[in-house]
Amino acid sequence: MTTSDRERQVLDRIEQTRRRRPKVREERITLAHGAGGKATQTLVEAVFLEAFRNPVLEPLDDAAALEIGLSRVAVTTDSFVVTPLFFPGGDIGHLAVNGTVNDLAVSGARPLYLTAGFILEEGFPVADLMRIVTSMREAADAAGVHVVTGDTKVVQRGKGDGCYVNTSGIGVVEHAWRLGAHHVRPGDAVIVSGPIGDHGITIMLARGDLGIESDLESDTAPLHDLVAALLEVAPGVRMMRDATRGGVATVLNELARAAEVSVVLEEDAIPVRPEVRGAAELLGIDPLYVACEGRFVAVVEEAQAGQAVEALRAHPLGAQAAVIGRVGEAPAGLVLLKTAFGGTRICDVLVGDPLPRIC
Amino acid sequence: MTTSDRERQVLDRIEQTRRRRPKVREERITLAHGAGGKATQTLVEAVFLEAFRNPVLEPLDDAAALEIGLSRVAVTTDSFVVTPLFFPGGDIGHLAVNGTVNDLAVSGARPLYLTAGFILEEGFPVADLMRIVTSMREAADAAGVHVVTGDTKVVQRGKGDGCYVNTSGIGVVEHAWRLGAHHVRPGDAVIVSGPIGDHGITIMLARGDLGIESDLESDTAPLHDLVAALLEVAPGVRMMRDATRGGVATVLNELARAAEVSVVLEEDAIPVRPEVRGAAELLGIDPLYVACEGRFVAVVEEAQAGQAVEALRAHPLGAQAAVIGRVGEAPAGLVLLKTAFGGTRICDVLVGDPLPRIC
Repeated sequence: MTTSDRERQVLDRIEQTRRRRPKVREERITLAHGAGGKATQTLVEAVFLEAFRNPVLEPLDDAAALEIGLSRVAVTTDSFVVTPLFFPGGDIGHLAVNGTVNDLAVSGARPLYLTAGFILEEGFPVADLMRIVTSMREAADAAGVHVVTGDTKVVQRGKGDGCYVNTSGIGVVEHAWRLGAHHVRPGDAVIVSGPIGDHGITIMLARGDLGIESDLESDTAPLHDLVAALLEVAPGVRMMRDATRGGVATVLNELARAAEVSVVLEEDAIPVRPEVRGAAELLGIDPLYVACEGRFVAVVEEAQAGQAVEALRAHPLGAQAAVIGRVGEAPAGLVLLKTAFGGTRICDVLVGDPLPRIC
Repeated sequence: MTTSDRERQVLDRIEQTRRRRPKVREERITLAHGAGGKATQTLVEAVFLEAFRNPVLEPLDDAAALEIGLSRVAVTTDSFVVTPLFFPGGDIGHLAVNGTVNDLAVSGARPLYLTAGFILEEGFPVADLMRIVTSMREAADAAGVHVVTGDTKVVQRGKGDGCYVNTSGIGVVEHAWRLGAHHVRPGDAVIVSGPIGDHGITIMLARGDLGIESDLESDTAPLHDLVAALLEVAPGVRMMRDATRGGVATVLNELARAAEVSVVLEEDAIPVRPEVRGAAELLGIDPLYVACEGRFVAVVEEAQAGQAVEALRAHPLGAQAAVIGRVGEAPAGLVLLKTAFGGTRICDVLVGDPLPRIC
């Protein structure tokens, strides 16, 4: 295929994407609509983006980039419905703070303030609420953010599940960093900041359905400091995303689609703890699709990949950071995995919800 | 009682309040914890304020006042769990936008941006979601705000109630207005921007339990424009609050307590529609405790009360605005109602939840 053929192909695909008006085919909401994969994407584009369309929302980034007066401000929101509420390594309170702090951090913002909205079910133990709120305070202190306003609603027994938490986050963008999928170029290195899937597998094990005992803990952690360490040594960072719902594979599929590039991963290079690999095999899911709550994916200019990984590894939260693949030109929109056995397979967008209510 | 006796009494009460460490006595969350009254107040102070305490959160205002760079920014959050989702005059989508817009407006901020977080129950009709989202867009357009980021979670059947919506709002404070309970002084006029209780009674009637037919509609509306009209003619506005959960009586009780003043209301002066009065009597509740979603209470320097009411009445949303009472010195912390029959009774803080899930 000549270069102009390839260019034409890319342009065609962009045009197709533009013309495509996504439509939710289901009449009713299913768990898959909350899984972060294909169904979520369609719901977001067909319902939310169609209704609310505006230039700030349109990129569908984790955080919205606003200009208020002379300040560049990043804003994000997330609801947390994880079950169980308490699990090894954390609880819904830690997640609610770290998740929102991380959405700000990977957008290049310094997290400053959080809002906290609680939907409590009648009968929920006040002691559990205090435990969750104490975790939130600890996590907020660790991330250097303040909870500045909040709201509490109570619903009748059977109309909730103990406690749901929403946090919105506000951060300030102090650097001239311009990050986003549209800055990604073929040849760039794809980096993950640590072993993947710990959080999702911990939640599945905590539910007890598998009957496996393990020392595994959620990786829930605030990433602002690790991100700052990376940005300091590698101004060639193109984009960052924390790999939550849908895992690393979902982040990379969204990237491949948005940037009209391919991503080629080396299976051997992807850090996965043996316990995670084992449990994932039993569950019949690929760790690449399992949520992390303290890991991010960064795409970095190839020439700076070495120093980027070095900087990440020098930080306690990035000790196992690794280059896991490269951005390519074609086939645009696809994520490919080179397996340990020398084969290549497509890592498609997640369909269905193998791990409901993981965050 | 001499002036110095009175002053001593006020100082004592302030000291008592300072020393009092509120404690949640219940072991489990009840509907009253979400009603906006006494139980909510205790929960907020004993659990949330204790854990998150910081100077921005401490006033427990509807919106937090932040400084980001050189900009003064107001931030607020609210979850909406109203049932039914659709009711005469609006739906959960209208409420979710107007409620947050109004929290910003009454804090003196110009509403700019919203976030939107959805918690959907498996099986919820996609058509209903589209209807809600369309309402949100209409309400956002009417209020001149943009939805800039969002989140969707799905919970299993029986773990939610169709659709819960959280919105956080960001506004900019462009004027030198300094508003808040601590600016309120004895002698100030208490104004309400229109007839009270329409929203709460509409919701109760929409549930069908009373078997009453009525043309009543929710008053859900964005108040930013009405607030701007007021501030333009009355720089002597001391504080404003939208009278949602717990109604006008709850707003005034919080004011009386925070400012260590009394509030004396004239029953005859309070605008209440006959249908609202009738239904409230059947339900055994006082309209003063019934939620509005498009009315606010303003405390205004006495000398400007006339022009304030005039400006409100000139606006379609304030046609029935009225002075309903005065701020006094003693008994500090209490709201008193002078009844039509010449008696006086205490309008105490709401206990229990006569109207669960009204917003």
